[in-house]
Amino acid sequence: MFRKNSVMFAGFLVLGVSAVSVSSFVSADNGEVDLLARAQSVFKPLPKTAETSERPVTQARVELGRALFFETRVSTDGKQSCAQCHQPMFYGTDALAESVGNQGKRIPRNVPSVLNTALQFAQHYGGNRVDVEEQAVKALPSGLAYGNADLASAEQKLRAIPGYRAMFEKAFPGQSEPVTAENWGLAIGAYERTLLTPAPFDNYLKGNSSAISRKAKRGLDKFMSYGCSGCHSGVVLGGQMFQKFGITQNYWELTGSTEKELLKGRDKGRFHDTKDETDAFMFKVQQLRNVAVTPPYFHDGSVETLPEAVRIMAKLQLGRDLSDADVSDIVAFLDTLTGEMPEHFVNAPVLPIAPFIN
Amino acid sequence: MFRKNSVMFAGFLVLGVSAVSVSSFVSADNGEVDLLARAQSVFKPLPKTAETSERPVTQARVELGRALFFETRVSTDGKQSCAQCHQPMFYGTDALAESVGNQGKRIPRNVPSVLNTALQFAQHYGGNRVDVEEQAVKALPSGLAYGNADLASAEQKLRAIPGYRAMFEKAFPGQSEPVTAENWGLAIGAYERTLLTPAPFDNYLKGNSSAISRKAKRGLDKFMSYGCSGCHSGVVLGGQMFQKFGITQNYWELTGSTEKELLKGRDKGRFHDTKDETDAFMFKVQQLRNVAVTPPYFHDGSVETLPEAVRIMAKLQLGRDLSDADVSDIVAFLDTLTGEMPEHFVNAPVLPIAPFIN
Repeated sequence: MFRKNSVMFAGFLVLGVSAVSVSSFVSADNGEVDLLARAQSVFKPLPKTAETSERPVTQARVELGRALFFETRVSTDGKQSCAQCHQPMFYGTDALAESVGNQGKRIPRNVPSVLNTALQFAQHYGGNRVDVEEQAVKALPSGLAYGNADLASAEQKLRAIPGYRAMFEKAFPGQSEPVTAENWGLAIGAYERTLLTPAPFDNYLKGNSSAISRKAKRGLDKFMSYGCSGCHSGVVLGGQMFQKFGITQNYWELTGSTEKELLKGRDKGRFHDTKDETDAFMFKVQQLRNVAVTPPYFHDGSVETLPEAVRIMAKLQLGRDLSDADVSDIVAFLDTLTGEMPEHFVNAPVLPIAPFIN
Repeated sequence: MFRKNSVMFAGFLVLGVSAVSVSSFVSADNGEVDLLARAQSVFKPLPKTAETSERPVTQARVELGRALFFETRVSTDGKQSCAQCHQPMFYGTDALAESVGNQGKRIPRNVPSVLNTALQFAQHYGGNRVDVEEQAVKALPSGLAYGNADLASAEQKLRAIPGYRAMFEKAFPGQSEPVTAENWGLAIGAYERTLLTPAPFDNYLKGNSSAISRKAKRGLDKFMSYGCSGCHSGVVLGGQMFQKFGITQNYWELTGSTEKELLKGRDKGRFHDTKDETDAFMFKVQQLRNVAVTPPYFHDGSVETLPEAVRIMAKLQLGRDLSDADVSDIVAFLDTLTGEMPEHFVNAPVLPIAPFIN
């Protein structure tokens, strides 16, 4: 209840007076303390890993999963891997509006970052993967991704790389045949559950008030006051629910629409998975960690810059016209979500050699 | 002259007696000293960089070149980069028999490692690139690689990533427009000139006799005695001349030939560049650094394992049938050429963000 009240309270402040008042509000010592308390009630700092009791993060699984994450030889064209779309150079994305997969096939949605993604309630824009483990397994027989006819043929490729057997055995002890697609998913999942990026905002949430700038604090205040945090809350600022994209008007009226998009038909989000009209234009609320360094934006990559994306979201979802100062402050806040990438993501592993298997 | 004599001398020894004698020969102290001296006359340890007076390796160029090496947004499908084929996970190769490029197009030759390649006398199997700089520039308008219509459109993409301007200015000071395809080549070249991998064999060549095993020394002795080092000599054990692939018989009779290969026609090596029949089946002698960890082998990736490649080369080029012990010893020697990859190759750089440009 506090959270809702606080949003309303701050909203009143902003609407009733000017943006400058917000600034003076948070610059007062009491305001600083209050802002932190409000933020702590809405957001949470990153845990050390995204481990759960069913999805343990063991060293052996992470080491195997790291190798498999970068492994290209399990794909039919020999070029696809998790890392192929989730590149360290671009904070776990590929910096494309829409991606390119097996044999140069166009993937019709923007690649979300793999960083921190394990902390979301589901994977993919439509949420049609319950967790990162399922996502990794189902990519194997996907024509756009690894391109295998079925899981068995993916397993055959994995087993043709002799160096993996010992790694699978260590990660999944006691199994008569540990080199399986299921364990591929569990290992990659374990690895991805360690791909978290602690950011200045985490230090702030832990009580270090000077971890983010005054401008970022103004942005944080506005982010909560204006209602952005109604959906973009929690540990990754999103990724906990579905929402209709385009509440006040059709999303494509603001994000722009290309001829290509018109040609292939509107992306109706979750509807494509459920075929239920009530799911039309419902998308998983995107997490916002590293959002400043992972353009372009939205499921179709239709918007190139973060200020524009912020402006559009406020209008589309909250019916609010942000001022330039608002946008600038909120972007400064979002900048504090840019974290440090783990070394075992930025460093490529050396993979076991094998006879040519494709 | 010494080199030729030494090969003949050792050749006599081996032919005149048995392979066991070679082993006892090099295990004697005098033999050890002699072997090292012979090796030092044929091979050279890696320099610190492959810098030349015309191709200076400055920190600013290497930093820029490293970013550009991993940069995908200058390709028309947004997925191609130098690193795309020359991956750290596979010691600067892509572990495919033949590679896959822009839009999934098949590249008809095996990707050679980028590691130490700057020390070769020319680039590509046919030697149709004078150096790594020219290779990097000419990849930009190649339909199989970056796919740009011309250099100007590649430059346009580069200039659309604002973060690069300052890096180019620093690397190429005083130029009115430093963001050019030519400087792309010079920067990537400078970076590649630092991608050298010091190996146990370098320590051996520097006089540390215990840096490689006795078995490897036997292999080294045979490698020189049997004549392999006639072509595979110098600092990268090759890469200094062209040779006909298949001197004693057609190469495909031993490497195997696939239906696919028959369909597309024989690869006649340098002939495809010069259209001169005397160049038919002439290929650049491949360097051998990291050969043990970069299967599959030969220009078409037709041979899967190193022992098989060694056996075939001895037969095809020298008319010699190697014993299993010979192959095993020579492979043990080749293992000592597996070096340490530089950190600035294994670690992916974070690239400057930009609006979507493809």
